[in-house]
Amino acid sequence: MSQSFDIAVIGATGTVGETIVQILEERDFPVGELYLLASAESAGSSVAYRGKNVRVREVDAFDFGKAKIAFFAAGAAVTRSYAMRATAAGCAVIDLSAGLPVEQAPNLVPEVNGALLATLPRPWQVACASPAATALAMVLGPLRGLLDVQRVSITACLAVSSLGREGVTELARQTAELLNVRPLEPRVFDRQMAFNVLAQVGTPDAQGHVPLEKRLVSELRELLSLPLIKVAVTCIQVPVFFGDSLSVSVQTTTAVNIAAVAAALDAADGIDRVDAEDYPTPVGDAVGQDAIYVGRLRAGIDDACELNFWVTSDNVRKGAALNAVQVAELLIKGVA
Amino acid sequence: MSQSFDIAVIGATGTVGETIVQILEERDFPVGELYLLASAESAGSSVAYRGKNVRVREVDAFDFGKAKIAFFAAGAAVTRSYAMRATAAGCAVIDLSAGLPVEQAPNLVPEVNGALLATLPRPWQVACASPAATALAMVLGPLRGLLDVQRVSITACLAVSSLGREGVTELARQTAELLNVRPLEPRVFDRQMAFNVLAQVGTPDAQGHVPLEKRLVSELRELLSLPLIKVAVTCIQVPVFFGDSLSVSVQTTTAVNIAAVAAALDAADGIDRVDAEDYPTPVGDAVGQDAIYVGRLRAGIDDACELNFWVTSDNVRKGAALNAVQVAELLIKGVA
Repeated sequence: MSQSFDIAVIGATGTVGETIVQILEERDFPVGELYLLASAESAGSSVAYRGKNVRVREVDAFDFGKAKIAFFAAGAAVTRSYAMRATAAGCAVIDLSAGLPVEQAPNLVPEVNGALLATLPRPWQVACASPAATALAMVLGPLRGLLDVQRVSITACLAVSSLGREGVTELARQTAELLNVRPLEPRVFDRQMAFNVLAQVGTPDAQGHVPLEKRLVSELRELLSLPLIKVAVTCIQVPVFFGDSLSVSVQTTTAVNIAAVAAALDAADGIDRVDAEDYPTPVGDAVGQDAIYVGRLRAGIDDACELNFWVTSDNVRKGAALNAVQVAELLIKGVA
Repeated sequence: MSQSFDIAVIGATGTVGETIVQILEERDFPVGELYLLASAESAGSSVAYRGKNVRVREVDAFDFGKAKIAFFAAGAAVTRSYAMRATAAGCAVIDLSAGLPVEQAPNLVPEVNGALLATLPRPWQVACASPAATALAMVLGPLRGLLDVQRVSITACLAVSSLGREGVTELARQTAELLNVRPLEPRVFDRQMAFNVLAQVGTPDAQGHVPLEKRLVSELRELLSLPLIKVAVTCIQVPVFFGDSLSVSVQTTTAVNIAAVAAALDAADGIDRVDAEDYPTPVGDAVGQDAIYVGRLRAGIDDACELNFWVTSDNVRKGAALNAVQVAELLIKGVA
């Protein structure tokens, strides 16, 4: 008889939490007991799993000794409140909330730096990076042997679902009101999001950088084990429901061999490269898919030491829930 | 009595042509006779000017000897068919269609390289650069003395109105169909544009670059008289009706003084700098405005030789029609 693992999902009623439950089922993860947990407000509702409705319980009353692996997909504050309790009870922690310091819970993308796990103390505490850092690390990871990357410039076009269900509802509401020529009162965003592009996602520090941009830079360096690469990043919010897209320009010290880059991406796990005649988009390709889509692969217009590409991926799946479940799959190989 | 100038607008029924007529009126341009011209299909309609409806006539029947300045705002093919005739008749040509080679009709942004005009033979043939190149030259122009610009990375988020009225109608139609859960049949764009981001605008060459991206690079070098700067550019189409936005990262050889950059932009004509607490957007700021809005001015997260900023502007106004009328204002100072 094969082994099974008791699993806890904290934040089970959120977009990411629900998707974790769905992906555990899709990938036939060997779940023993499934404990769905949430704050007092959301407790009592239920989430579908393997044809049954699993009741969501209050996280505060949960005995973490009952679970082998806990996914923390509620806010950072929730993770900080309960992760210690999980660890003390011998339960592995997979943090999707950026709630723990990186020294305590390093970021893991199995295809990129999965080997790190063997070096960590148990019970394991690991984290999932932001969707944009995960997607970009998936693309740059297989290219490390091929390119001497000096600098990366990124414009990350984020879907409104990066703000959870509220962001999705708000874009739909704003769009409907505008099409019906009703006055617009922005709620979740600080201004009109429909038919607009917002250049700032979060509150900037005194230097003008927002937390998400700083996080993306440090996560990318961490995941790629390239602490010295320079990264210029601008995160913008676009009126797209699901699917983050990245416009990326990379500088290298030597001429880029585009055919070799394409071959390395084709050989990499989890990447779907789209040929030059076509290009991937969030709606047409990424939504609901596991792969990271890469397109518009090209050198500079007159600079051979420049590599440009476009990445689009489902921010809720590989950007969060799928990566977390893949991390759990690694953990159980080492028997969590 | 002050002098007036007879003006021809070719492509008078298009978005840009109509806006030229409107801006001539707004800016009280000393128009004598106004000749509105278009292809045989559009001839016969009329466009409002100073409270009257001016009839649109067929361009092919027009005697260019009647006009002092002709704005070419129809397609490149139309410009190539009639610009020679205008020049032969002694009429100055302002091309908004990228129809003429740059050696024949250099690009002009009055605030950036207006001094060039004095060196050109008459009758003048000049051109307006693409909206994105115009906007970015407006921002980088005043910074040339301050920064030793080595490289510029740009992601240009283009409004659907860059495809004219058809693009605008198509985004509205697609959005309404999706909100009403009707099946979507893309027309003007090659796929769903509503709630999506398209990574490729135009048909790429064998190296993967699209004409608009190549044009942007060469126009930027030309306008700034910086033939050696490296430019990485990706043009994407976003579901925004009016207003192009640019995410820009600049590399320099020495540390960037952000306060000095801000001061230089504040002193420059045609620029509206938005403070760090706020940021400009196409819908909220740019649409219908003459200024180029700049925001999110900041150095690199840990690179002092990096300057990042965000630009948004009305692609139809300073990006096209307004710039063309300002060029005409320069021409009449030299008495076209």
